[in-house]
Formats: sequence, C-alpha cells, structure tokens
Amino acid sequence: MRNLEEFKILSQCNETRARATQFITQHGSVETPVFMPVGTLGTVKSVSPEELKAAGVQIILGNTYHLYLRPGLDVIELFSGLHKFMGWEGPILTDSGGFQIFSLAKLVTLSDEGVIFRSHIDGSKHLLSPEKTIDLQNRIGADLIMCLDNCLPYPISKDKAEEGVAMTTSWARRCKSVWEIQKKNALFGIVQGGAFNDLRKRSVDELAEIGFSGYAVGGLSVGEPKECLLDAAGYTLEQLPKDSPKYVMGVGAPEDILELVSLGADMFDCVLPTRNARNGSLFTSFGTINICNAAFKQDIQPLDPECNCYTCKNYSRAYLRHLYMAKELLAYRLNTIHNISYYSSLMKRIREAISNGVFLSFKKNFYDLRKCDNGL
Amino acid sequence: MRNLEEFKILSQCNETRARATQFITQHGSVETPVFMPVGTLGTVKSVSPEELKAAGVQIILGNTYHLYLRPGLDVIELFSGLHKFMGWEGPILTDSGGFQIFSLAKLVTLSDEGVIFRSHIDGSKHLLSPEKTIDLQNRIGADLIMCLDNCLPYPISKDKAEEGVAMTTSWARRCKSVWEIQKKNALFGIVQGGAFNDLRKRSVDELAEIGFSGYAVGGLSVGEPKECLLDAAGYTLEQLPKDSPKYVMGVGAPEDILELVSLGADMFDCVLPTRNARNGSLFTSFGTINICNAAFKQDIQPLDPECNCYTCKNYSRAYLRHLYMAKELLAYRLNTIHNISYYSSLMKRIREAISNGVFLSFKKNFYDLRKCDNGL
Repeated sequence: MRNLEEFKILSQCNETRARATQFITQHGSVETPVFMPVGTLGTVKSVSPEELKAAGVQIILGNTYHLYLRPGLDVIELFSGLHKFMGWEGPILTDSGGFQIFSLAKLVTLSDEGVIFRSHIDGSKHLLSPEKTIDLQNRIGADLIMCLDNCLPYPISKDKAEEGVAMTTSWARRCKSVWEIQKKNALFGIVQGGAFNDLRKRSVDELAEIGFSGYAVGGLSVGEPKECLLDAAGYTLEQLPKDSPKYVMGVGAPEDILELVSLGADMFDCVLPTRNARNGSLFTSFGTINICNAAFKQDIQPLDPECNCYTCKNYSRAYLRHLYMAKELLAYRLNTIHNISYYSSLMKRIREAISNGVFLSFKKNFYDLRKCDNGL
Repeated sequence: MRNLEEFKILSQCNETRARATQFITQHGSVETPVFMPVGTLGTVKSVSPEELKAAGVQIILGNTYHLYLRPGLDVIELFSGLHKFMGWEGPILTDSGGFQIFSLAKLVTLSDEGVIFRSHIDGSKHLLSPEKTIDLQNRIGADLIMCLDNCLPYPISKDKAEEGVAMTTSWARRCKSVWEIQKKNALFGIVQGGAFNDLRKRSVDELAEIGFSGYAVGGLSVGEPKECLLDAAGYTLEQLPKDSPKYVMGVGAPEDILELVSLGADMFDCVLPTRNARNGSLFTSFGTINICNAAFKQDIQPLDPECNCYTCKNYSRAYLRHLYMAKELLAYRLNTIHNISYYSSLMKRIREAISNGVFLSFKKNFYDLRKCDNGL
C-alpha cells in the first residue's frame, strides 16, 4: 500500500457508516474491518505464528519502543526485519513508540527535536524524534508505520490540546518528509485533539493536507468515559478522507469494535483479547466467562460450542479450568488461541454482514446473544 | 502389555548389556530404550500433545499424587481417563504417588494400611495405600502403572533399608492382588534396597516371585553420589528378569542414560529436559548451552544445526535468547520442544546403534562431541 490507489472500498452499509474495504501490503492483502493482535516484543504472547494464522489473524502489531530497547534494531536487522526474526510472514503494523514513551518511560522531556526519555528497563537515555521513529520502523521492516504523535491524557485543557495538535501536525510533516526518501511501506497520520471537535477537525485537515496512506484516531482509551470515546471517534472518523483506511488505536472490547465499525472504523488493535486470555477471561458467543468459575470443574463441553478454534475443537472447559487453576503454561496459550480466534471470527462475520447488507441485524443479534453474559 | 509375552527383545549389544526391546500397550507400541517426558498435571509443561508427537515422544508419564489432588479423579473419570482429558493418544505411565508423598506432602504417617499424608496444596488429609494407588491409576486409565513402594532417603542404615524392602514387598503383593481383579494395564514392581546389594537382590527376588509385567529400579536420584547410583542400578538391572522391561526411575542426564542403557536399562523418566528448558539450559549435539549467554545476542544460527525439531527449523539463537531474556511465554515452549526432541532423537539413535551393532562406538562418539561443552 505504498500508494493510496491500492485501497478499495468493497461494500458500504446503508444504515450506518460501516464499510468493508481491502488494502494490499508487501506481505499480503488485508480485509477490513480488521483486528490486529498485539505482538509487543516480536511475539504475540504465548502463541506461534502458525497458531496466529490458524486463528484467522491477518495482520499483527509490533511496538517500536519495546523492540528498540529489546532485542534492539541491530539484532532485528540481521534478519532483514521483524518478519524473519519472529517467523511471521503476514503484514505487520508498528506504532511510533510515542504512546509507550508517555506511558512507560521515565523523565520524558519534550523539545523541538523530539522526546528525550529514559528506558523503563535500565534507565538509559534515548531520543525519539519524528525522523527517528520512521527510521526505526523502516528498519523493523513493518508494512504499515505510524507518525510520531503527541498523545495527551484525559481530561486536558483546550490550550494544551491545541498545542498537542500543533506539535502532532508539525511532527507528521517531518515524518512524511523522511518517509518520502524510501517509501518502504505505508505511512499513517494520527489525529489528536482530545474531546474538542474543532481541534479534531483541524488535526484531520492538517494531516489530510500533508497526505498519508491512512489515518488513525489517536488519543483515545486514555481514561475518558465511553460516550466521550465514541463521540470523539465518531466525529473524527466522519471527517477523515473516505479513500483511505481509518484506524482507531488501542480500542478493543467486542462491543466497542461493533460501535466503531458502525461509525466507519476499518482497523483496530488492543491488548484485551490476549491479556484477558492470560487472566482467564474468555470471549464467547454467549458472553464473557471466567474460566476459574467452579461451574466449569466438571464441564466436559468445549469453551464455546460455536467456535472452531484449536482450543474449542480439542479441549473441554474442565481441562482449561484445571490448567488455569494449576497455573500451567499451556493454559495461557490455549486461552489466547481461543480469544484471538474469537476476535478473528467476529471481524470476519462483521465483514460478511456488511457485504451481505445485513450489518444492522447482525449487530442486534450480537448484542442479544452477548446479553446472557451472566448465564455462567 | 497385560501379558509378559507381548514384550520382545529386538537386539542385544555384544560388548555391553544394552538392548533394544519393544512392548505393546493399549495405546500403541513402545520401542526401548525410551525416555518418558514428565506430564505431572495432565500436561507436559508448555507443550501440546501434537508437539509431543512431532518431537518423537512415544510415551509420557503422569503423576498420580498430583492428579489425585488436582483436578481430582472425579474430573478425569468424566473423560474416561487422562488420555481424553488431556488429548494425548499415546501410552501413559503413572507413578504410584509414593515418591511425591515422601518428598512433597506434609505430616506423613506410615501404618500397616498405607501412608497418611496432608496435601501440599491445602493441607487436607488423605490416605494412600497399595490398594488405593492401583484403584487411582486404573481410574486415570494409565497403560503402565506402578506399585506403591517405600522410597527411602540417602544415606540410610541397613536396618532401615531392610525394613523398607520388607514393606515394599508386602505392598507390592497387595498391589498385585488388587490389580489382578481387573488387569486393566501392565503393573510394574519397584526394587528398593538402598546401596546394599544383598538387599537389592532380596528385593528383586521377592518381586520376581510375585511376578510383574515389568520392573523398576527405585530409590535412586535421592542424593547419592553418581558412582553409587550407577553401582546400585547396574547391580539391580543385572539381577532383574531379562524377559521384562527394566525401568530406572527419575534418572535422566543424557550421559546417565547412556551409562544405564549400557547396564541394561530400557525405560527412563526425568524432569531434566523440561525443567532445564524452562531455565534456559538447552541440550545440543555439541554440549549443553545456556540461552542467556550474550554470545547468542546476534547469532542467526539455529540452536543446534544438527537438530530437526520445530524450534531449530524455524527460529534462531538470537530470537530464542530474546524471548528468554524478555520472559516471553513462547520461550518456555520453544525451549521445551527442543529439549524433548533432543531426548527423543538421542533415544532413537541409541536404539539404532544397538540394532546395528555399533552401540559402543556410538557411545564414544557421543562423549567426544559433548566434550566441547564449554565451546559456547
């Protein structure tokens, strides 16, 4: 997707702004709406690349900040990039590292050049700039890369939010300039502006003026109420150019995804399915269950009889509960395979519903089924 | 292997007592010398049944004590046994639970009936008797089961060792009696006697008189020096009936296995390959390496270029080191797959060397290669 032409809208919902699209990367095509599991350190925790593929995963996300610190770009470059290093042959999107620096790193200093921070691992001092994040992401060999943005907390004053937008635009321009030298991949701009629609609009306009392969809605999932998230995302998605993929960063409960798809979002990432799996919280067609529940002790059924994943085809709730209670390593893996498969299957059914013109009834049915959340 | 007739000696080394044999269980045949990975709680830690099979594993071991406490026999019986509960279709051997009671449980009291102990998990009180261990192992559905024995520490006085042998014989007789009602599987007797050859001889004779499908050398790997282990095992193996499988319990460094095979042992189990894997200690054709070693940071080679396992075929030392340093769950799994594959491959090459009449030169070559232990 070096060129915007490679992005195609396949189908558009009549009643909502939901759409099914497709774009092509150097490592294969991606059909949207799509969910990208998070593979922070060159591995989606506990599962193998083959298992990701079997679980229906199209594209994964890598974290530039984490990979830069460990194992370091010198190591990844020996393998010509992250794909060969970790054995994943599909597309990879990397973030800019900015979000992690503001949330994980210590002693963050903003300057004209970029952000100076200390590693959360060993306290060593580093600089991240717009130029540097593009260089790092190019060296990681990601297919889709992100501009450095100024991701601000919630709540925030309008003045601060305005400063953030200005800095984000200026950094985006610098990212685009250095990206243009190689055009190795597709570059996404990130919209900021907090909960202020006029600032969101300004951010969208300034980024669209610079021109990117795709656009992300940033600054969400930073502690704001759910309505606020949906309002800001909904407004921003509507303003964004229609002929590019729209990515809502870091949002990921199944219900949120369904709402954001209705508002026009194409791409998602979130640690929710993988982190929850490791905490024993599992997504099913009939609601979320906790595998620790004593009701599962003697339950010979698969986790979700509707699910075709490796875990549901081969193991029982009783076995999964036993593994989890005993803190067996296999528990984390089987749970993760299931949750990732649940997400892949949900996104596939969303795409099909949009294509078949039945998205609204799919959405209603989804909520009806998930309502029996406390059935177990 | 309900009947001893199903045991066949395929090949016998001329220079040593090494032999290649085969026996048949309800879940398939086993070729010896064989190594059985330990699957304490209904899972060989971190790996799936499919991965065990791909790693060349013929038979696994389950721990009755652990399975009795968690998930409990009521759960396992819902699946008609451990095979279906955990999804492993090959043969399973279970121990009697005696060893764990003496090493893990609290407040152990010996009585005529059996052993009273408190669970290491919740302190609950339980009785294990010869009759009960056979019942438990039958209910687990194991293919090969073990008598309850009195496993004593090292060093120990001759009087105590003699008492231990007497109790072991008496328990073995009771195990055999209750086993004969169903004859659901193959029952092994366990030789005790500490470091005293006359007691070992007495134990062998008394067990052989009762008659079992196979015989195990017990009471080893309890803190005795290596020579003492090899002396006691060597003497005992020589005394045991030749027309039955001989199992040396809980011993498992590659070099120990090679020596014990030379002394006539057919079967082995040990936590070494799996536990070491989780500690980053990996077996290779050129010695044991620790994956943390900084020398591997930029090493793009497979762990062991001679190895055909999933880990060595798909990943580099640099990636394995990165995963391990970052404490990623995939590290434990990839390391375990490799170590188990190493053991399977070692046992296969031992069997082939015996069959081809070249066991002694194989053994010499093995030591020569493993000498470069500190090469990395």
